[in-house]
Amino acid sequence: MSHSTDSRPFFLDCDTGIDDALALVYLLGAGTNLVGIGSVSGNTSAAQGASNTQALLALAGRTDIPVAVGGHDPLEGSYHGGTTHVHGHNGIGDVQLPEITGTPEAMSAAELLVTMARKYPGELRVIAIGPLTNIAAALRLEPNLPALIAELTIMGGAAIAPGNITAVAEANIHGDPLAAAEVFAANWEIVLVPLDVTMHHVLEEDDRLRLLASEHPALSAVGDMLGYYFDFYIGVFGRPCSAMHDPLAAAIAIGRVEALSAPYARVIVDATDGPGRGQTICDMRGLYKGYPKPAGATCRVVLIAQECAMDEIMHSTLALATNISA
Amino acid sequence: MSHSTDSRPFFLDCDTGIDDALALVYLLGAGTNLVGIGSVSGNTSAAQGASNTQALLALAGRTDIPVAVGGHDPLEGSYHGGTTHVHGHNGIGDVQLPEITGTPEAMSAAELLVTMARKYPGELRVIAIGPLTNIAAALRLEPNLPALIAELTIMGGAAIAPGNITAVAEANIHGDPLAAAEVFAANWEIVLVPLDVTMHHVLEEDDRLRLLASEHPALSAVGDMLGYYFDFYIGVFGRPCSAMHDPLAAAIAIGRVEALSAPYARVIVDATDGPGRGQTICDMRGLYKGYPKPAGATCRVVLIAQECAMDEIMHSTLALATNISA
Repeated sequence: MSHSTDSRPFFLDCDTGIDDALALVYLLGAGTNLVGIGSVSGNTSAAQGASNTQALLALAGRTDIPVAVGGHDPLEGSYHGGTTHVHGHNGIGDVQLPEITGTPEAMSAAELLVTMARKYPGELRVIAIGPLTNIAAALRLEPNLPALIAELTIMGGAAIAPGNITAVAEANIHGDPLAAAEVFAANWEIVLVPLDVTMHHVLEEDDRLRLLASEHPALSAVGDMLGYYFDFYIGVFGRPCSAMHDPLAAAIAIGRVEALSAPYARVIVDATDGPGRGQTICDMRGLYKGYPKPAGATCRVVLIAQECAMDEIMHSTLALATNISA
Repeated sequence: MSHSTDSRPFFLDCDTGIDDALALVYLLGAGTNLVGIGSVSGNTSAAQGASNTQALLALAGRTDIPVAVGGHDPLEGSYHGGTTHVHGHNGIGDVQLPEITGTPEAMSAAELLVTMARKYPGELRVIAIGPLTNIAAALRLEPNLPALIAELTIMGGAAIAPGNITAVAEANIHGDPLAAAEVFAANWEIVLVPLDVTMHHVLEEDDRLRLLASEHPALSAVGDMLGYYFDFYIGVFGRPCSAMHDPLAAAIAIGRVEALSAPYARVIVDATDGPGRGQTICDMRGLYKGYPKPAGATCRVVLIAQECAMDEIMHSTLALATNISA
């Protein structure tokens, strides 16, 4: 893993959220050039998510990164109100961060994304770790967006693994199935990081305690938040730990963790009101022939990532305190 | 594997169909007490399927087993006309069997099933290897059917494996999603044998040639049919062979092949017109905790079967010629 500075511009779209918070401090620790951050309703509301993001950036001394509030409601219907049993009432495990002083950008998250895409045409890389409301809104604002974006990495969905909100639907996609359907229907290079891989990269209590013990206030805060998240995951894994959905997607997006199996597949999203609502229907029928690339497919579905992913995530995150990275 | 006579009464519901044909001669070779057979539209029409079944029974000298024609159309909509590219124009790879002389039962397949369920209350075991039209029709005729049936084994669906008709739907369930939804909603012990397991039990060309070379006319005919089926599967597996969907379900139903992993799971069927139509939505979220039995679940989903399944299927099928079994 090279820790030289990566000057490529990245846009982060998130619903901060406990694992979003870790993804953010991870990206900062890894020295990622974040040119903008959008918030979207998901784990918590878009407004609360922006506030959480700004508070973490302040703790990290990075108020230079613009944060824009994104869609409160999905493209159709109303926001469900958040997953308080997983992420707490404020999205970050009810941990209280210092009051923020700055205000978010005047423009919306979708507008900020389009602005940055035009500023860095063909270079901007997008990491979407919440519902895809803002990405779809940006697509509607700028239909040429796919040509302006180098790569879109999405944490979401489930290919052949079970869902986590329903038997087949994952929370981010289920949060705005119509937006997801529009995003997957557009013609851009997508790297999908679904539950198939994220459920196999788990942060353990030892790791959490290392974060909690950090002298860096952003890291100790995230360590604190993770206690709430771990409590929820006892019901899933039977022990205090948690799947690292968003940090894993971030690590793959910035190239610090390699996808060992990521076949191209056609992906459509079930936006009906039926029992499959919110499912990423990934056509994995090439399974029995080694996944030949289907004609026209532009989405790679990550099924296996490097085993060392958690080591990299912990290493680069802790680097935020020691400044060995950026 | 014991080859003593099994006197338990079984009802077979099928859409004969090349792998149905092998399942039928397998069950006869294994000495299964088949008290009735229903046909349903799927691989071929219900009428053609009944005719194919009767012709095979005649070749096997078993015209004593009653055959009833079942539903031509699914509960809603119209029959799609068959999968001629997989099963040929007559359902059995365009192999010509001797003209049948008998006629099917006057009653429908659903009526025959209800009749047999009442004759063997609590004892009858049902093996459903086609769309579930007849099983749902029987449920509508006799709402108490689940209490009369000891066990219902279904070949169909996909739990975490890809589908075969769409990315998520398997042919039998996709053939009549509404019927399947009603069947899975009823309160009976179901053993679901989905693509997750059937795609891993494959008949090879050597096996087919042994059947083709048999002196028993039913076996050589099935060996002949399988040539057509194998040609289709080259597109799936890259070599002439075929998954043994229906024979595997039959072997599990009669207890000759053991399910090594068959967790209980809640199963609902997507009967919408959306992209998930025909999917068996199996709630496999217990995966990460060793699949504890969900409250109220009565369906076991077979994920792994004994490796020796194909040996058993070939052995018992060939026994039809040598009479070492029944």
